[in-house]
Parts: sequence; C-alpha cells; structure tokens
Amino acid sequence: MKEELSSVLNLFADFNEEELAEVLNCFNSKVVSKNEILLYEGKVCNEFYFVKSGCLRVYFTDRNGSEKTRYLMLDHHIGTALSSFISREPSFEFVEALDNSEILLIKHSDFYKLLETNVPWQKFYTRILEMAYSFQDKKIEQLVTLDARQRYEKVIEENPILIQKVSNRILASYLDIREETLSRLKSQ
Amino acid sequence: MKEELSSVLNLFADFNEEELAEVLNCFNSKVVSKNEILLYEGKVCNEFYFVKSGCLRVYFTDRNGSEKTRYLMLDHHIGTALSSFISREPSFEFVEALDNSEILLIKHSDFYKLLETNVPWQKFYTRILEMAYSFQDKKIEQLVTLDARQRYEKVIEENPILIQKVSNRILASYLDIREETLSRLKSQ
Repeated sequence: MKEELSSVLNLFADFNEEELAEVLNCFNSKVVSKNEILLYEGKVCNEFYFVKSGCLRVYFTDRNGSEKTRYLMLDHHIGTALSSFISREPSFEFVEALDNSEILLIKHSDFYKLLETNVPWQKFYTRILEMAYSFQDKKIEQLVTLDARQRYEKVIEENPILIQKVSNRILASYLDIREETLSRLKSQ
Repeated sequence: MKEELSSVLNLFADFNEEELAEVLNCFNSKVVSKNEILLYEGKVCNEFYFVKSGCLRVYFTDRNGSEKTRYLMLDHHIGTALSSFISREPSFEFVEALDNSEILLIKHSDFYKLLETNVPWQKFYTRILEMAYSFQDKKIEQLVTLDARQRYEKVIEENPILIQKVSNRILASYLDIREETLSRLKSQ
C-alpha cells in the first residue's frame, strides 16, 4: 500500500524499520475526484500530501482573477500549500485535484509530533524545505529572465511529462504565458 | 563581539553554552565597504552572513539588464544567496554591501559540519528555511496581487526602516516598481 511513499522517504533520509513504520502509520489514504478542491484560499492548510497516482495542483489568483499555478504534483510527488502549513495563517493558495487521484496525507499535528522524536523525519523535512526554496527561487529567476519560448523549451527539457499530462490552460498558467502563445509554441 | 549573533541564535533554538560556543567559533568577522560585491553571479555561494551593522543586498538582473532586489539585510539580519549555498551550483544572484558594513560569516563547509552534530543548529537551519520559503512565497503573492501603491503601503506597515535606510533606486527594485512611481507615492 505505502511502498512508493517508503521509497521516496528513503531517498531523502536513512530510516530504520521502526522509524519508517512510525512515519507510514501517520499517513492515511484518500481518493479524490477530478476538480475536487482539497484546500480553499482563506483556510489554514492542515495536510501534507503524497500523490500515489493522479495529479494535484497548487495555485492562487492574481488581482485580475487569473489563476497562477505554482506547483504540479504528479505520481510520487509530495507537497502542499507550504506557507500556510508552516505559518498556520490562512492560505492564499488553493490545492485542487486535476484528475481522479489516489493520495496519502499526513495531518499537521502528526507531522510536527514526528519532528520532535524521529531524526530521519527531521532530515526529510529539512531536505523538503531546501528543495521547495530552491524550486521557488528558480521559478522566480526563470519568470524574469526567460521569455515565453525559452520557458516552454525549459519545461520540455526538464519536465516533459507535464506537456503530456496537463491541459494547455493549466500549463500556460504554470509557465505564466497566455494560452494562445502556448498553442502557437506547441504547433511550431 | 558576538553577543548580537548569540541573541539571534537563541531566538531560533535552545543552545546550551557549549553548543553555542561551537557555533560562534565558526563565525569570522569581516568589514566590507559600500558597493563591495561579496558574491558575483556565476560563482558558487560559499558563505552565510550575519549583519552586525550596515546593509547587504541580494539581487539579480532580468533579461533587460534591470536589477531585481530579492532581499535586504539590515542590522542583525541573516542570509545569503541561499539557492546556490544549498545546491552548490553557480548563483544567479549577487550579494552586495549597500553601506560600509560589519558582518560575521560562516563558510559552507563549517555550516554543514555543524549540522551533523549540533542539534540546536539543525533546528536553527530548519527555522531559517521555513522563514526563507514563506518570505519568498509572500513576495510572489504580493507581486501578483498588489499594485504599486499597495506594495508601498505594505512596506510602510511591515518594514518601515527600509524607507529610511535604503535609496529610492534600491527600494523601487525591491518593490518591483519604477523609481518615478516610488517618488510620486512618497510625495503624496
């Protein structure tokens, strides 16, 4: 049931059998339907997700009401609306299922309880934070240094599965380009 | 010499005397001159800074050559070009002294050596990463949800010292608005 999550955890830190079991016990399965919203803007984020299959999206809306996609979680990805999960303040982001998805989730209280006693889980969390920060920083850099074509070429190079799995509307909002521009780039 | 740094460390985690001494021993003093560049774009970031007095700035340039200021470190702030410090890849950011500044710095190798043995230092680092991620996320949100006036009002509310300490050119690049717009907002 939780083999894929075990593999991901072991990529980030060295868990012994007991430590791993303690972590896995805190994760619960959930099946979510396409278009289901797991977190609304304005609510405090209380869950951290692992995607077994399907796709979750973290997004927010700008001052014109346009959706901006921050992060896409496909098979075996982890994540959540991390700022609100950390700060316990209302989220400005939504979490949505883009497909019917099987997920595992851990509640905030269990997540932080584990941090007090489970040393590899602390390492796992530190590594997650490092990656989340670097990912965010790289995204900002690319938004201001690359034009639409270069951003599209970058995603082909670094994350081609997004082009197959995600609609043009969502991919355009992820790359922060217009949907018509994306269609033109795809056809060229 | 290092009292201010001790206070900041103790805000983030509970160090005993020995653990604190071990950390402080790894920090070295440096005096830097106004406009001195501590890290150039394209170099790997090997240092993490604490500002005793003065001001450091982390910035990068967009595809039109305009400077974008990501982070300003005034008295008793900590930070660096964090993505490169973590990834060991060349930095897209510069670190620059905006004033004559007295700083303390720790080298990357010492920083990571401490992480292996010094438990409060691990907690300190996790807390830094949480704050850096949340700060970055909030900045992205504000850039897409607030207009120039609202960003200016936000900085008056949350970080008024920046308005006194930093030139209009730098503050405008921090808020990602034009310098003329900032001058107009200030005069109103």
